[in-house]
Amino acid sequence: MSKITKDYIASTPNVLAAEVGEMLIAKSWTVTCAESCTGGGLAQAFTAISGSSKWFERSWVTYSNAAKKEMLDVRQDTLKEHGAVSAQTVKEMAEGAAKKAHAELAIAISGIAGPSGGSKEKPVGLVWFGLFHKHELRAQSIIFEGGRTEVRNAAVNHALQLLYESLIV
Amino acid sequence: MSKITKDYIASTPNVLAAEVGEMLIAKSWTVTCAESCTGGGLAQAFTAISGSSKWFERSWVTYSNAAKKEMLDVRQDTLKEHGAVSAQTVKEMAEGAAKKAHAELAIAISGIAGPSGGSKEKPVGLVWFGLFHKHELRAQSIIFEGGRTEVRNAAVNHALQLLYESLIV
Repeated sequence: MSKITKDYIASTPNVLAAEVGEMLIAKSWTVTCAESCTGGGLAQAFTAISGSSKWFERSWVTYSNAAKKEMLDVRQDTLKEHGAVSAQTVKEMAEGAAKKAHAELAIAISGIAGPSGGSKEKPVGLVWFGLFHKHELRAQSIIFEGGRTEVRNAAVNHALQLLYESLIV
Repeated sequence: MSKITKDYIASTPNVLAAEVGEMLIAKSWTVTCAESCTGGGLAQAFTAISGSSKWFERSWVTYSNAAKKEMLDVRQDTLKEHGAVSAQTVKEMAEGAAKKAHAELAIAISGIAGPSGGSKEKPVGLVWFGLFHKHELRAQSIIFEGGRTEVRNAAVNHALQLLYESLIV
């Protein structure tokens, strides 16, 4: 295990999450998320913002395949054919989360934070993002550098960036 | 809004979460959580530990009352009579989460992180914890000092402490 600390220290409120919140309030929209490799980090970033209950009211941490299926209705065939870290899976996660949360905007995150679990085709640092925006679905992947903590941080920051960009257009 | 930062920085792995994980592995148990005021922070602390998929596989962020009811089967009567920040509610949250996750251990967190939302009876900083351990349920409350970030951090740390204590007995 890498560096280990005595106390849990959550993130302080961050600019992008606050701006996403302001834009959601202006549209009277809510956002939700379905997190695998970030494991609650994005929800934590949302709720670090005071007043976030106006635009965020629920989310899922679906770490296992069973959780993705049972909580978000990801199809067994999708997981079997494409794996949990894939465009298909994050799209189904985002769609499932949006429907269940009655949210206009949803983002799903599934990746390989490491240090183990990587392969040649899916290396450590690979993270897929699925975005549900009204009724459109799209997916994007990035390979982030660094260790487990850096990959998870970068994935949360990128998710916030994607949400921001989807709201300014 | 208080201090605001440019980037989201997640917690680094912490000692207590790692120890909880080791004890769960020894028992072949899993843990789950249902978070309101900490908004994903506890799940994030679990998943900061490499290999946490052995003992953690899903959790819920239930920020609204609707989410508590729809996702965890908290009763409308409970919320109406006692409020979301109460012993009764966190017990139902923990029980609902444990059942749905098929987990031996579950913790629920509901509190008033502030800066607003406090009252004379339920001041800012009040956090209720509900613990499901096998089939026993208990609840505990603490009033934490400090601002929103400090209250949320302290609540995650205290939840980890409660889980640790429940596993060493």
